[in-house]
Amino acid sequence: MSFVFSQTREFEAANEKYAASFNKGDLPLPPARKVAVVACMDARLDPAKALGLEEGDAHVIRNAGGRAIDAIRSLVISQQLLGTREIVLVHHTDCGMLTFSDEVIREKIRSELGQDADHIAFLPFKDLENSVLDDIKLLQEHSLILDVPITGYIYHVESGKISKVQRV
Amino acid sequence: MSFVFSQTREFEAANEKYAASFNKGDLPLPPARKVAVVACMDARLDPAKALGLEEGDAHVIRNAGGRAIDAIRSLVISQQLLGTREIVLVHHTDCGMLTFSDEVIREKIRSELGQDADHIAFLPFKDLENSVLDDIKLLQEHSLILDVPITGYIYHVESGKISKVQRV
Repeated sequence: MSFVFSQTREFEAANEKYAASFNKGDLPLPPARKVAVVACMDARLDPAKALGLEEGDAHVIRNAGGRAIDAIRSLVISQQLLGTREIVLVHHTDCGMLTFSDEVIREKIRSELGQDADHIAFLPFKDLENSVLDDIKLLQEHSLILDVPITGYIYHVESGKISKVQRV
Repeated sequence: MSFVFSQTREFEAANEKYAASFNKGDLPLPPARKVAVVACMDARLDPAKALGLEEGDAHVIRNAGGRAIDAIRSLVISQQLLGTREIVLVHHTDCGMLTFSDEVIREKIRSELGQDADHIAFLPFKDLENSVLDDIKLLQEHSLILDVPITGYIYHVESGKISKVQRV
């Protein structure tokens, strides 16, 4: 598929620049700040910039919506093998997960790909604050997740600001 | 758990600085460069810095190992609802996934948490290059993933460089 326009040449050029001034080759494998961040994959959110993370600081787990249930495998590895002892969740305003339902995406897949995706829970949500609170609760109650501090934020794509979500 | 040392105060302070000079409040929801990056959660890897991504450019999906099978839900949403048409995979040297087996982590969870994790495939691997090639193949053959360019890289934590992985 070499005729298809691809971003990789630009990624490789950007990486050459990054590597040219790279001076962090001795960082240890376990995250220095002992935190695992679970955040949405959204293009507008850069968790490292938004939270002030440097290379070596924290695990960053990202998926559509920043959903906790989809991060369990990674969080267990993070805690059990690499010593993280805190979880920070970041969902965000204008999230794509607010715009569809399982039925909508399954129908789109059926009509456009001719495939059945009924076995996949796509994990959309209807309320942003509740999606954070639900995910905090899921982690607090999960038998494979340690009893560690868990903080949930909403990242505001309009302002770059985070705001903490707390049960009232 | 307010007595536990937490990183959140520092995250909030860093975010205030980030937001103070934030000027990207008008970015559209779909990624501008139409790419979904699938990368490991490793603390030493900053995909945005390593590939030259700005806010708004690309979906970034991250999990333990950067495993493709664990990214399918997010990739389907990325392609079907948000229009990405390219996938870039990034695994890396000195990955924690090279250091254990399902048996090892399940036994640790049994002895330390008293829980059974036999139902979870933790997706460790024994060979770094093959982990990238296997994941490219999985995506190429997956019935829910579009036929788009897929490029696999190894990120070298010692140098900051990426190298393309190709079947020889």
